[in-house]
Amino acid sequence: MAVATPRSPLAPSHFPDLPEIPGVRFAAAEAGVKYQNRLDVMLAVLDPGSAVAGVFTTSATRSANVLDCQAKLGGDSSAGAAILVNSGNSNAFTGRAGEGSVAAICRAVSAETAIPAERVFTASTGVIGERLPHDRITAKVAELASTLSGDNAEKAAQAIMTTDTFPKGATAQVSLPGGAVKIAGFAKGSGMIAPDMATMLVYIFTDARVDQADLQSMLALLNARTFNCITVDSDTSTSDSLMIGATGASGVEVTAGTSEFVAALEGVMTDLAHQVVRDGEGATKFVTVNVTGATSDVDARKHALSIANSPLVKTALAGEDPNWGRIVMAIGKSGATADRDLLSIRFGEVLVAEKGWVAETYREEDGAREMQKPEISISVDIGLGLGACTVWTCDLTHGYISINADYRS
Amino acid sequence: MAVATPRSPLAPSHFPDLPEIPGVRFAAAEAGVKYQNRLDVMLAVLDPGSAVAGVFTTSATRSANVLDCQAKLGGDSSAGAAILVNSGNSNAFTGRAGEGSVAAICRAVSAETAIPAERVFTASTGVIGERLPHDRITAKVAELASTLSGDNAEKAAQAIMTTDTFPKGATAQVSLPGGAVKIAGFAKGSGMIAPDMATMLVYIFTDARVDQADLQSMLALLNARTFNCITVDSDTSTSDSLMIGATGASGVEVTAGTSEFVAALEGVMTDLAHQVVRDGEGATKFVTVNVTGATSDVDARKHALSIANSPLVKTALAGEDPNWGRIVMAIGKSGATADRDLLSIRFGEVLVAEKGWVAETYREEDGAREMQKPEISISVDIGLGLGACTVWTCDLTHGYISINADYRS
Repeated sequence: MAVATPRSPLAPSHFPDLPEIPGVRFAAAEAGVKYQNRLDVMLAVLDPGSAVAGVFTTSATRSANVLDCQAKLGGDSSAGAAILVNSGNSNAFTGRAGEGSVAAICRAVSAETAIPAERVFTASTGVIGERLPHDRITAKVAELASTLSGDNAEKAAQAIMTTDTFPKGATAQVSLPGGAVKIAGFAKGSGMIAPDMATMLVYIFTDARVDQADLQSMLALLNARTFNCITVDSDTSTSDSLMIGATGASGVEVTAGTSEFVAALEGVMTDLAHQVVRDGEGATKFVTVNVTGATSDVDARKHALSIANSPLVKTALAGEDPNWGRIVMAIGKSGATADRDLLSIRFGEVLVAEKGWVAETYREEDGAREMQKPEISISVDIGLGLGACTVWTCDLTHGYISINADYRS
Repeated sequence: MAVATPRSPLAPSHFPDLPEIPGVRFAAAEAGVKYQNRLDVMLAVLDPGSAVAGVFTTSATRSANVLDCQAKLGGDSSAGAAILVNSGNSNAFTGRAGEGSVAAICRAVSAETAIPAERVFTASTGVIGERLPHDRITAKVAELASTLSGDNAEKAAQAIMTTDTFPKGATAQVSLPGGAVKIAGFAKGSGMIAPDMATMLVYIFTDARVDQADLQSMLALLNARTFNCITVDSDTSTSDSLMIGATGASGVEVTAGTSEFVAALEGVMTDLAHQVVRDGEGATKFVTVNVTGATSDVDARKHALSIANSPLVKTALAGEDPNWGRIVMAIGKSGATADRDLLSIRFGEVLVAEKGWVAETYREEDGAREMQKPEISISVDIGLGLGACTVWTCDLTHGYISINADYRS
């Protein structure tokens, strides 16, 4: 889509100052995959010995790139690794031709970087079902390889944007007994809602030394609590990819038991996940849905997602309407266990409903005041058990309809 | 909501001429439950010997009325039955007070009609969480009971409307060896999307003689193929009710094996279900989603609902954009089995995609022409088995956002 969208009102004030991560270098270029005169391809190269882990979309129609990445995870890390990402075309639902495009890109990256093709990971994001003009990308690989630099992360973050209104970055530093390690990452995405099925891509790097299996389990666990807890419109893309590279250049050993590191990584992932929601198309509200007291965490998640994905709840949020009846409706339809007479609902700190009815202390103007804030929290206690889940989402506005219906892609 | 909404562009030209069904009489009145000067309560009385069957929402937060109806189904039919429905207030999430309201209404109807309270069924539709002013309703029961007439069905259909833009009725006549039987029914609803959580209510009557257990199984089976196959925005209400009364006044015996009757009843139910979709808030397109070739009917339904509920698919329909990539996305995320390289997709008769890619014969202008029609069909063959399902839905437009976000209820 060529229509410029204004920067989201929920965007952070600026891109963070990402530190260089020893052992990883970036480059970005203008390949003209779909549009001219914009960065649309980025290359990251990780030094030999780097561990790489990834989590990908579970879509049954996932892209050729995703299938290729999944097959390559867990390979030999002694040769280093490379990640090449293009925007403008998702290379999804492009049949056997899509697999050929991935192979051609991996060969070109391998030739210019001396990293074996089995250690080259790719992602493509943009329109579905159009053949990827991969020759435009391979033509740029030499330029990319010759301009690699540790401080190019912001350019790389820009190159993977499609309809994002701002680039998304986050960083953390952790002091451990063996020394300090750094984490830096960037992401693109409007929460799966974007014209031409733009998608969520996340790349995180650290100079910690982490065993690949440990890195993979850490990433999967934290993903369940961060990126898998955001939703804009319940539409799952064909290309979602989250990857982490640990170069080990700090010499500091980290495992899944290193709680300071795990907490810092979770912080970076949560920050990036929130930025994706803040760039949700048409979003004017950043909404936290907390569910507690469910019979299990699985049930809590069902309730939370049912609330966060309900068009009636999301339009009420857009209209700043404290319509708690729609929260009751969403809990009722979730399929998870609930008892009307045990439910309680809060907007921010305001108790709205309890014991199966509106709270005696509740005044509509208190609820309305909470709804007027740009950041809203909805807390529901199911009253049955210890299951809990937090999910982040945004509202559903005319902006969403305009971007996805009025403009032709 | 007091804002008048213009009649849906997808509405039928007029309310059908419903025949009188011997053994059932209707009345409607203005009780002022929420608004003045509009019909908002209706009473139907069925003669002794009438069988009554019903299917209700599965919401965990369903209304007091729904719980009461479910408990009463299958009772003694020798005393006849009554159905009282109000609009303007859903009596849902009103705690113990809600149960008291239902009991008070049933007592009043019983006193005026001589039908035992255990055979009085009720429904309420409108705002959630506000105490039902049931005394306004009970004050009108004597008037209702004294104005019962076989030809008041259209007034009854009007009295149960909330934000509907037109009353919905359908009828059929079936000639059987034993004689002719008639079916007439009416419905309200905008497919669960409406301010204040208005809901779907359906009442159907026939003069066939049907055993209650047979009537119940017939209704449940046909419901799965009609009302359970429509969706506007995936939000399930707390009050959905579908009831059928068979008075037996024709003397013609019907069972679940009477295929002509079952087909006619399915026709009436499908017609009413389609009218609910045609009145979906903001709807400008009536959309049929056909899925074939799935590994099971259950999987076909998952794919069909994933397509029909996808905000990205629904906004593409609103924008008349033949964006088949979004169909691929919706199939991919459904959770049901699919193989990218076996899928085929059609818009109307136009083959869009097959064998994992866009069809060689497909031209964008052919797809665009299909999208410009007010009635659109999307057909997907999964290519794996014999599972099939058809679902009906509408598009997602600015009208939906305006009704649910801009106006305060």
